[in-house]
Amino acid sequence: MFALIRRLLFGRPLPTSRQKHERLPKFLALPVFASDALSSNAYATEEILLAFALMGAGAVAWKSVIWITLAIVALLWIVVISYRLTIFSYPQGGGSYIVTKENLGLKPGLVAAASLLTDYVLTVAVSISAGVAAIVSAFPQLANDRVMMGVLAVAVVALANLRGLRESGALFAVPTYSFVLSISTMIIVGLYKVFTGDVQPVHAQFGEVTRPVTGVLFYFLILRAFASGCAAMTGTEAVADGIPAFKPPESKNAAATLVMMASILGFLFIGISFLAKAYQAVPYESGHPTIVSQIAQGIFGRGWFYIVIQFATALILILAANTAYQDFPRLSSILARDRVAPRQFAGIGDRLVFSNGILALSLFAGLLIVIFHADTSSLIPLYAVGVFISFTLSQFSMSKRLRTLKQPHWKLYSSISLFGSVVTGIVAVVIAVMKFTAGPHIPIGSIRVPTGAYIVLLLIPAIVAILLKINRHYLELGDQLRIVEFKEPVPVRTTAIVLTSGIHKGILQALEYARTLSHDCRALYIEIDPNDTPLIRDRWEQFGLGVPLVILESPYRSVLGPTLAYLEEAKKERPGHIVTVVVPEFVPLKWWHKALHGQSGFFLKIALMFKRDIVVTNLRYYLER
Amino acid sequence: MFALIRRLLFGRPLPTSRQKHERLPKFLALPVFASDALSSNAYATEEILLAFALMGAGAVAWKSVIWITLAIVALLWIVVISYRLTIFSYPQGGGSYIVTKENLGLKPGLVAAASLLTDYVLTVAVSISAGVAAIVSAFPQLANDRVMMGVLAVAVVALANLRGLRESGALFAVPTYSFVLSISTMIIVGLYKVFTGDVQPVHAQFGEVTRPVTGVLFYFLILRAFASGCAAMTGTEAVADGIPAFKPPESKNAAATLVMMASILGFLFIGISFLAKAYQAVPYESGHPTIVSQIAQGIFGRGWFYIVIQFATALILILAANTAYQDFPRLSSILARDRVAPRQFAGIGDRLVFSNGILALSLFAGLLIVIFHADTSSLIPLYAVGVFISFTLSQFSMSKRLRTLKQPHWKLYSSISLFGSVVTGIVAVVIAVMKFTAGPHIPIGSIRVPTGAYIVLLLIPAIVAILLKINRHYLELGDQLRIVEFKEPVPVRTTAIVLTSGIHKGILQALEYARTLSHDCRALYIEIDPNDTPLIRDRWEQFGLGVPLVILESPYRSVLGPTLAYLEEAKKERPGHIVTVVVPEFVPLKWWHKALHGQSGFFLKIALMFKRDIVVTNLRYYLER
Repeated sequence: MFALIRRLLFGRPLPTSRQKHERLPKFLALPVFASDALSSNAYATEEILLAFALMGAGAVAWKSVIWITLAIVALLWIVVISYRLTIFSYPQGGGSYIVTKENLGLKPGLVAAASLLTDYVLTVAVSISAGVAAIVSAFPQLANDRVMMGVLAVAVVALANLRGLRESGALFAVPTYSFVLSISTMIIVGLYKVFTGDVQPVHAQFGEVTRPVTGVLFYFLILRAFASGCAAMTGTEAVADGIPAFKPPESKNAAATLVMMASILGFLFIGISFLAKAYQAVPYESGHPTIVSQIAQGIFGRGWFYIVIQFATALILILAANTAYQDFPRLSSILARDRVAPRQFAGIGDRLVFSNGILALSLFAGLLIVIFHADTSSLIPLYAVGVFISFTLSQFSMSKRLRTLKQPHWKLYSSISLFGSVVTGIVAVVIAVMKFTAGPHIPIGSIRVPTGAYIVLLLIPAIVAILLKINRHYLELGDQLRIVEFKEPVPVRTTAIVLTSGIHKGILQALEYARTLSHDCRALYIEIDPNDTPLIRDRWEQFGLGVPLVILESPYRSVLGPTLAYLEEAKKERPGHIVTVVVPEFVPLKWWHKALHGQSGFFLKIALMFKRDIVVTNLRYYLER
Repeated sequence: MFALIRRLLFGRPLPTSRQKHERLPKFLALPVFASDALSSNAYATEEILLAFALMGAGAVAWKSVIWITLAIVALLWIVVISYRLTIFSYPQGGGSYIVTKENLGLKPGLVAAASLLTDYVLTVAVSISAGVAAIVSAFPQLANDRVMMGVLAVAVVALANLRGLRESGALFAVPTYSFVLSISTMIIVGLYKVFTGDVQPVHAQFGEVTRPVTGVLFYFLILRAFASGCAAMTGTEAVADGIPAFKPPESKNAAATLVMMASILGFLFIGISFLAKAYQAVPYESGHPTIVSQIAQGIFGRGWFYIVIQFATALILILAANTAYQDFPRLSSILARDRVAPRQFAGIGDRLVFSNGILALSLFAGLLIVIFHADTSSLIPLYAVGVFISFTLSQFSMSKRLRTLKQPHWKLYSSISLFGSVVTGIVAVVIAVMKFTAGPHIPIGSIRVPTGAYIVLLLIPAIVAILLKINRHYLELGDQLRIVEFKEPVPVRTTAIVLTSGIHKGILQALEYARTLSHDCRALYIEIDPNDTPLIRDRWEQFGLGVPLVILESPYRSVLGPTLAYLEEAKKERPGHIVTVVVPEFVPLKWWHKALHGQSGFFLKIALMFKRDIVVTNLRYYLER
């Protein structure tokens, strides 16, 4: 029954021979690896504007948004140029964990890994929440079901991945290109309208303008908005991770794809930010209608093309979540193989996927969606810190590597990496400071706990500590179990003790078995009611197969206590022997019969499970009626 | 830790030698055995009045209540006279089950037993609910906590009984005699006031008088009220059950106690019913203030004596519940020893009490209190039917026995028993018909299910059927396990198969053990990743102690499937052999280490538990770090 449900949900098991790697041409690799990065266009501009709006500084928002966008795009290109070096250095795939571990050592590597793991979880939570917001913008009547829709989306993506949805180019191509095309169309038509002066702004009023923005406050706001906007850069590392999936020449194709991705991302991001100002789109704290929705509505009205844009946005966001479903299990399986994560993450399931990683990711992401009510801007303060930490570590590692290898042009190249590392490091600090407690206050019991980047900054060292502890355990385990040299084994001697509650056919079978175990064999009977003892003794003499019967009194009518005490004695009495306890048990034919028998055998087994140097053997006697 | 909590709640275990029987003099036996019967005075009059009030026939209630009371007292004396015969015939204790089984056979005996078991559960529920009503009458602000108080009271009584509260005369004497004395005082003062004309009726208005009461309706109402009032007779059988607890001459003392009990019960019942009319006490559907509360308030005001009466009432009602806590576990242990009830009910716990019976009773009674909102009059329709069925069966059995034994005066005595049986049988039918669906409608899902005596009439045969089924299982079990004649056993041969996941110290230990089990010994390795196999094979040759290694491919990466398939093969290959599967397992030092290892060993054990003719032996290797 269980097997049937399992099969319906997850499909038939797949043989190992089906495991193979799809090689992607560039036009298919782009959607696969860029969907995460491109999808952030759905919320990046909005987060920048919201950073102003929340401080009552709407007045400067429209003026600044385009400049902040340009700064982020510039930062993107720095990272892209630096990552091209990684792509050519690690044609087998240069994820931050691998690059950092190889060049800086295990602990920095684990910091990169922990940063990425938290960020993958956040990618799922943020993307799904933003996808839900796109749908809710089109259908506001669904606003109250956001959390439910979010959790459902996580479940669907998880299920698809458990079934073994591979990084199939075809699957990604349609939504990604639809998104790119529909948003590009929107931008081009919007720009045309702006330049022909055919613009009807969506809103006249930008929240409440409560304070004049001058001096330090102005720079603070700019930094804060910049920190929010940096969420646009998550997903940039995906190409470098996945080089083996490209058609040869792998590195060259990957580098070209990365550049293509950055170009599209930059175009869309700048376009949306420009139109947000032109159409005076306003961010809502409720998260909907989204900025993209407002722009689309301003340009096309709420017609069919508006719906296309909203659906394409929702779809690419779900795909972005799906990339995390590739990355998180893959990274945790690498960690498991390196013996720093629980080994269950290394195992490939029935359907040739890392099932446990998928389940863990879904659990954490679902939890975040519930805690933060599927609200994108509540999650953003936790987001991006991790990614920038991993950028910094990975590029710093590259610069060290390039300096060490001293290949042609190493001075230039290592400087590029170092520069990238310094810039992303500074941005990481900016995000951490600006977003430290920028999230909503979450009620836990009666206390309202603030949230923000500090959570991630606490989580990363905690995860590293746990990974190191796990690593130590596995190393110690290996030490203890390793057979170093061959020793002729000392012959093992066994003492067999049969636990009896009387004498019947089930016991007889156990006695026969015990006699094959050892010549040193006896039976133990715990006397609960002294009136029964003479009969037992008589019948034992008659039928007991010559196995000596030990009778123990139990003044407190407990079977467990005297049994355990006797076994301890027996162990002491025969040092070097393994004491094998034979527990006879009859198995009734019908399930409800089980309820009609005492469970003392079961409790005995449980208690014996925790005793050292005692081997428990269960002998079942099957009833036929 | 668990043991400590257990000890705090239930006390230290008691040795079997502490088991002894207290012998009670009459003045202590009376409170022990009469508390149940006497306590029904707290609600019997009220139920009679309520039967009228609910039909809008308050007008005839005060006129009829005293006559109905007298009829019930007359019925009580018939039963008492008849039960005196049982007391002298069964000095070792003549519960209805024993008497009926011995004289009419097992099935009628089980009907009596099932009737009593349901009635014991109802005794607890009704008494506790009425006790709570007495408290709520004094403190109406507690009205909303009735269910909680009821469940709590059940828990306290259950706990006291699990600790081993014996039928201690001293414990029962104070509340029972307090109740008898305080209610007697109330009756005497009340009668004095009535005869001196010093009565201020509590209420002028008796509910709504909605219909004229004439002809058939009148007789119907009278019968209905009579059926309700019969609840007063529950508990009468207690003396006959408990004869061995009396000081010698047991039967004589028991008979005297029974007569004493009936006299007191009659006096109190008639007194309360008379005063209910005189003070024009009115029954409330909410159950409070109770009739006794209204009378006491009318006579004494709400002063200290009023509070004494209410507390004495509550206490004796809880004691009445406590009698069921003696009777139910005792009867179920007798049934278990007769192999008609699950044998767990026969076992005496740590504290020399039948713990499982106590738990079962508490569970059922607590459930009833929750379902019926701790409302006495909602429970009354289910009550008393069972008792009257057992009265009928027990007395009919006695009349048969007396006719068979033909001792002196047998004709008179057997006629008395037969008459008692016929009268109680008729009353049982009256109660069943009058109360058939008289209870409240209980919502189950969206349906409101009627309640009433029919539930008990369905339950009794259901319980009998279950008991018979249990009996058949135990008899069949005995047949199957019984050793009829001694047969020289055929020598058992064992094939030992060690499940391995590699080769390390834990496996070595298992191999050594397996070699002591049998010369026919091998190891089984399931190949998940073919790349590992050559290494395993090499190391096995070096360290494998000469045990042959079987390597099986697993194209679907499952360990379970190929292992089970191989074991099936092995069984077929060696017919007559017992296949012993040795499962090596290492035991980590810290609990959280367990989470770092695959659970395939655990799942294997579970799967093997259900395979026939396979013995599973676990070999644990203890890690030291």
